[in-house]
Amino acid sequence: MDLQGAFHVYDTTMRDGAQQEGLNLSVADKLNIARLLDELGVGFIEGGWPGANPKDTEFFRRAADELDLRNAVLAAFGSTRKAGIAAADDPQIAALRESRAPWVTLVAKSHTRHVELALRTTLEENLAMVRDSVSHLRESGQQVFIDAEHFFDGYRLDRGYALEVLAAAFEAGAEAVALCDTNGGMLPHWVGEIVSEVIAETGGRVGIHAHNDTGCAVANSIAAVEGGATHVQGCINGYGERTGNADLITTVANLELKLGRTVLPRGRLAEATRIAHAVADITNFPPASRQPYVGTSAFAHKAGLHASAIKIDPNLYQHLDPVEVGNDMRLLVSDMAGRASIELKGMELGFDLSSDPDLITRVTARVKELESQGYTFEAADASFELLLVEAVEGARPAYFDIESWRVITETSPAGEAVSEATVKLKAEGVRYVVTGEGNGPVNALDHALRQAIGQAFPEVAKFELIDYKVRIFDQGHGTDATTRVLIETTDGESSWVTVGVGHNVIEASWGALIDGLTFGLRRHHG
Amino acid sequence: MDLQGAFHVYDTTMRDGAQQEGLNLSVADKLNIARLLDELGVGFIEGGWPGANPKDTEFFRRAADELDLRNAVLAAFGSTRKAGIAAADDPQIAALRESRAPWVTLVAKSHTRHVELALRTTLEENLAMVRDSVSHLRESGQQVFIDAEHFFDGYRLDRGYALEVLAAAFEAGAEAVALCDTNGGMLPHWVGEIVSEVIAETGGRVGIHAHNDTGCAVANSIAAVEGGATHVQGCINGYGERTGNADLITTVANLELKLGRTVLPRGRLAEATRIAHAVADITNFPPASRQPYVGTSAFAHKAGLHASAIKIDPNLYQHLDPVEVGNDMRLLVSDMAGRASIELKGMELGFDLSSDPDLITRVTARVKELESQGYTFEAADASFELLLVEAVEGARPAYFDIESWRVITETSPAGEAVSEATVKLKAEGVRYVVTGEGNGPVNALDHALRQAIGQAFPEVAKFELIDYKVRIFDQGHGTDATTRVLIETTDGESSWVTVGVGHNVIEASWGALIDGLTFGLRRHHG
Repeated sequence: MDLQGAFHVYDTTMRDGAQQEGLNLSVADKLNIARLLDELGVGFIEGGWPGANPKDTEFFRRAADELDLRNAVLAAFGSTRKAGIAAADDPQIAALRESRAPWVTLVAKSHTRHVELALRTTLEENLAMVRDSVSHLRESGQQVFIDAEHFFDGYRLDRGYALEVLAAAFEAGAEAVALCDTNGGMLPHWVGEIVSEVIAETGGRVGIHAHNDTGCAVANSIAAVEGGATHVQGCINGYGERTGNADLITTVANLELKLGRTVLPRGRLAEATRIAHAVADITNFPPASRQPYVGTSAFAHKAGLHASAIKIDPNLYQHLDPVEVGNDMRLLVSDMAGRASIELKGMELGFDLSSDPDLITRVTARVKELESQGYTFEAADASFELLLVEAVEGARPAYFDIESWRVITETSPAGEAVSEATVKLKAEGVRYVVTGEGNGPVNALDHALRQAIGQAFPEVAKFELIDYKVRIFDQGHGTDATTRVLIETTDGESSWVTVGVGHNVIEASWGALIDGLTFGLRRHHG
Repeated sequence: MDLQGAFHVYDTTMRDGAQQEGLNLSVADKLNIARLLDELGVGFIEGGWPGANPKDTEFFRRAADELDLRNAVLAAFGSTRKAGIAAADDPQIAALRESRAPWVTLVAKSHTRHVELALRTTLEENLAMVRDSVSHLRESGQQVFIDAEHFFDGYRLDRGYALEVLAAAFEAGAEAVALCDTNGGMLPHWVGEIVSEVIAETGGRVGIHAHNDTGCAVANSIAAVEGGATHVQGCINGYGERTGNADLITTVANLELKLGRTVLPRGRLAEATRIAHAVADITNFPPASRQPYVGTSAFAHKAGLHASAIKIDPNLYQHLDPVEVGNDMRLLVSDMAGRASIELKGMELGFDLSSDPDLITRVTARVKELESQGYTFEAADASFELLLVEAVEGARPAYFDIESWRVITETSPAGEAVSEATVKLKAEGVRYVVTGEGNGPVNALDHALRQAIGQAFPEVAKFELIDYKVRIFDQGHGTDATTRVLIETTDGESSWVTVGVGHNVIEASWGALIDGLTFGLRRHHG
């Protein structure tokens, strides 16, 4: 499949996506993202603006040596030459040449007010800047795309001039012109109309670069493709300045799964969820759970009404099979869930409850009661499993018996706060009194607990607390607040999440810690 | 303006929005959200499903007494009657009648496979269920909307039957039928076409209920309106099951500001940002910074290219004036915009820094250093002001001198955890050693601190901690985590937010508490 051929999937995560508030990428981050984008099978990876900042220059230098791309080619982003000088003499253009990127994407002004006010040059000189820059780079062996900045607004203000800019680009040898909705104010039907008019008028190859300021970036991109665009730009996870750029994976999934166009190599879309989350790990922005196709909630069902229908046929309540984008269907246990979702969830965990309707009623009632106190079992599968075990077996599994605990946090002489916990408990008939330290009260309690229980159950040494989340439900004033704690524990092979609730954050954490240890011990001891 | 007239803005945040993973609303939350929706000026507020869960029944009971709605009317959500019984005998229908809501929205099946597989009844009986339920509720004095579930998929599978369901609803007296893209798989041009076909075919009033599974919920809603729909459903902040429902504010803002339709009372859209954030405070989901129109990043500019153009004319780089939706333009602290935004923030707080470029450089560097450690000053204006005061005056205001502190949390004999803090400090030349109790370690520290300092500065008695937020930055493993705490303090007249950071959550909280007290004292003492 020729990814640089009939249809271009063009990623700008590392350039326009990196304009997002709070997003900072190191050169190593960029190299890793480029590898992931190549796995996804995009045709073009815009790596940054060499010359504009040293990190991007270094990225292209290292990319040429270190990246072994199988699908994608690199594009360097830059601007048309400065007014009044030759393209060959412009140091910014020189940096693009020296980037060794096979493609260059040049931002060009196509909006008369921007030429006059922001660029402070004449409309004529701007056309010459486009022409010269494109032909100079073509002559030095690079292929060129034009990003026509503010195209849609410019087209509405002065259609003739906007089209002249495109004509200049095509005449000078640009492969395609991406029409940019730079300020993001467009709606789909406007984009579709303008794209088809432009194609009819210029006969050139047109692309789309959409922002999400009206919440329509994906729809605008789809409308452009339906209007004849064959080059789509976007960012993984919809990163980008302000409201972000078009989410590239959502756009591509719509093209492939809804409109039947093949734009990625076969089978690549099934990697989309993994790749979107891996990029989120690198940017350190938690992936949005509601993200189309790849979000953790994208195929999660909570409503009791839906759950009962899902028992019959999952496709009744999902728009496609999540496997197509590498995602999973999930059933959420919540106070809105009915009996059907409890039964299905039980089955997922290996309990066949179908023969015991009374038990289902009891568990459903218990879940609703606990959730009204602030518990949540949607995220805390392990606590839910313990609750199920308790209902099925009549008692909660107990491997130890707590006598008391205490945790002290105080300022040390050096000024740093230290935490120290003392736990008294019995396990396997032996009483343990153990003190543990930590860099916080929960950490200290965790250390003390595992040290004590580990003497009776050595496998506890492998357990580790890997995530800790606190959520406070403010019920009017700070002091009445209820606290919910979610804890993720691992045994090195897999991990599980437990929940604790209390007015006191330490007490809530304690509950989640105890569940986490109990669940882990049950897994090892049955 | 008749909000129940020519065009309906219909909010379902409290019903379909509440299907979102992790979203739980108490009755008090719902009453508060209803007040905010009424302020926004929506025409209809869907309050929940009375009878399906006790919380929703109670909401309607209390709403009838406690809510004084000026713009909106309440709608109760429910289902058509059960197969095989009379509408009057169906307890679920009875709960809708007893809700005292002037409007009822009934979900009805319009997809043949769903009728047969999920509802397990005949196509004929389903039509009778729609007819009977609508006319029964009309006769008992309520107005009725129909949510035609899975309409678009059903229409594609069996157009004739889907239209028959709508005809039955209209004949029985339904005011409008909302076509639901329940599984969310539609694209805008499909929605637009089907909506106009349906209107041509039935002559009835049609609405749209869109989900965001293709990332097109807003665009689908707009396409429906352009196809003739005059009733739009959605949720604040796009809450909802899976990928969420159409974001109601984005949809309405597009209708008003992009398409020139007036759908809210005059001036209400300028409250949109405040209301969206207030609802987020209630749901306790941090507002998405990239959210169109109302996100904190929606009018934020980072790119140097943009920032310099913005100096010339802000409208060159924004699609509209953020004031129209109650938002602000922001320049972000970054390599390009850092100094300018520090200077602007200083001005906001009453410090003219323009004459001292060295000071701006020092403050900028300090902010960057602290933010790299996990501090944030975007939300914590009071901590930022203390930092500025320190830079301008050479020292941080000091009203007291901490010697040491300690906090103990332990299980009491009764099994409840209790926290007890001891603080030693000097204020106005006197040494205080005070112990305070609380329902958590931070609460205990706050009590001890205010008790001690209050002896030297009696106004501290008025201070109260009203909000406490914890965020954990997991840097790989639970134990390396950095914690950020934001605390909001009030003196009964106004409130201020401070920030603390540390490896130990108690230490981070302590820092924010100290800033909160210092800021409050400075306000009273200068």
